[in-house]
Amino acid sequence: MSSVNINDLAKQLHLSKSTVSKALRDSYEISQETKKKVLELAQQLHYVPNPYASSLRRKKSNTIGVVIPEVADSFFSSAIKGIESVAREKGYHVLIYLTYESYEREKAILKDFGSGRVDGVLMSVSSETPDAGDVKDTVDKKIPVVFFDRVVEGMNTAKIITNDFESSYEATSHLISRGCKRIAYLSISKHLTIINKRMEGYQKSCLDHNIKCFDDDVVECSNDNESNFTIVKGILSKKKRPDGLIASVEKLTTPVYRACKELGLSIPNDVKVICFSNLDTASILSPTLTTIRQPAFEMGKTAATILFKAIEKRNFQLKKEYIIIPSCLEERESTS
Amino acid sequence: MSSVNINDLAKQLHLSKSTVSKALRDSYEISQETKKKVLELAQQLHYVPNPYASSLRRKKSNTIGVVIPEVADSFFSSAIKGIESVAREKGYHVLIYLTYESYEREKAILKDFGSGRVDGVLMSVSSETPDAGDVKDTVDKKIPVVFFDRVVEGMNTAKIITNDFESSYEATSHLISRGCKRIAYLSISKHLTIINKRMEGYQKSCLDHNIKCFDDDVVECSNDNESNFTIVKGILSKKKRPDGLIASVEKLTTPVYRACKELGLSIPNDVKVICFSNLDTASILSPTLTTIRQPAFEMGKTAATILFKAIEKRNFQLKKEYIIIPSCLEERESTS
Repeated sequence: MSSVNINDLAKQLHLSKSTVSKALRDSYEISQETKKKVLELAQQLHYVPNPYASSLRRKKSNTIGVVIPEVADSFFSSAIKGIESVAREKGYHVLIYLTYESYEREKAILKDFGSGRVDGVLMSVSSETPDAGDVKDTVDKKIPVVFFDRVVEGMNTAKIITNDFESSYEATSHLISRGCKRIAYLSISKHLTIINKRMEGYQKSCLDHNIKCFDDDVVECSNDNESNFTIVKGILSKKKRPDGLIASVEKLTTPVYRACKELGLSIPNDVKVICFSNLDTASILSPTLTTIRQPAFEMGKTAATILFKAIEKRNFQLKKEYIIIPSCLEERESTS
Repeated sequence: MSSVNINDLAKQLHLSKSTVSKALRDSYEISQETKKKVLELAQQLHYVPNPYASSLRRKKSNTIGVVIPEVADSFFSSAIKGIESVAREKGYHVLIYLTYESYEREKAILKDFGSGRVDGVLMSVSSETPDAGDVKDTVDKKIPVVFFDRVVEGMNTAKIITNDFESSYEATSHLISRGCKRIAYLSISKHLTIINKRMEGYQKSCLDHNIKCFDDDVVECSNDNESNFTIVKGILSKKKRPDGLIASVEKLTTPVYRACKELGLSIPNDVKVICFSNLDTASILSPTLTTIRQPAFEMGKTAATILFKAIEKRNFQLKKEYIIIPSCLEERESTS
């Protein structure tokens, strides 16, 4: 840790501590000459302001927190890039906190925020998070929070989302247009708004096209690759197996491809597959994968831009911000 | 922010501030009865300790910083999981800072650490970072730093690495055993120790097998997918093009596959490809990809375990820790 503090600077310059402090903050009360002297010595002695002490004074951490379920997902890694592009311009640090889809961990992180560690929070909730509770407490504590992608519907704050219902409707209609008669929807959560909206889009499209959805066509998967592999094998081994699959998240891609391979089912001849994914490798898979590509970078960038408006302007109305950035269907071999 | 502080608790309980503070820290000086009273009221009023104030007192942040180039790489996302598995047990927060391969950003982050924001640092340096300089300053400032994967050789602290020279030697020998006569090595940095060790392993294997390495067989790629695509196309369009490629990092996979496709070159018939990668999708690519798989989770876990030894025990000798966890070759169709 730096061993030089404001006291040391003040002593050497024969100035008061408060004068040095004001000079370092570029206060109008201090002459240019004094400021220059202070800054030169500070530089010479490698003075580093203590963020805790200065945070107590200014009540600012110059830091925003990003709370997301994981980073092993190309949506989140792109969204982080979008967030960082804005934070960098503002001179803010970005701290990434991972919940690993655990509501317990999410609560522990939010509790930590409640005590002033960050100036604002960007958040995509875990798959376990219910539509109320502790998330609400954080917002009540006056730290601005902006949700992106995985939002809590009941929360009265900014939300940056994509058109989950519509894009899932389009994905399902695409499968039907390619001849699918029975389509299964692979979910990962009963709580998540986005996953449920995607499910509703799928159901509505099936209804509109007179395709029957059976109860067991909506399948809840987990966070574990191996158990998802077993689950998908189970669905595809049934007598009346689906001929179309919609994977609601990227991590289901590998289990689906592996299950088809093991069962000797050809994609797309026996089963057509479409996945909500921004996978860079979608175009080099065997077969190449049809995806619903989300505007991840744009969503992160927009969410951060709005968060900074709230950080910089106390009376900015976060709750009025509800922005939808559309996803797009990218057709490839897996549905041809 | 929480509006209840220690003063409020002290006033309501008719106790001194110092008694309340000690009770909250479970001090032996305070009776069980008093502790119970304090904790009950603290809970009732939703008291949250201010981390800045308590950090000033305890000089502890209960936080470790992880500085890495990016998260859009399965090595780093797995390593983070390993780190979190240890930090969770210790009750520590993990903050992830991304350098995006920029030495300037890395320096800004390290400067921030110099002022006590974290209790320890786990680090994998950017591709621009030279073997000296500011990284050294941070360690000199007595914050324990543990390097993993991308280390700075000259630094006198703990290093957790994998056997880059040996595994690259093995990868090259594997390509030669499959008939390759001219092998190119795709680098991403002239600075990074791991990338250079992999290059040396490649060169030594070629030498041992009487395969000539030309100067332009070592190709420096960038961080940009599109320019890497152009670079790889350039190599593969030459008259005497290589029949084997070693990609030193995961992100080169997609450009390599796309370039081969565009040029009508078959992998593995015309060009055999091997990549340093932990890609989950390696086994479902077309063709499936032979990889050198690094022990990412184990490396993260080991690095964190050693960091906590240094945080918990002041005289722990970090510089004595030099741990090598081996990678393994996973053969698939791209080299068959």
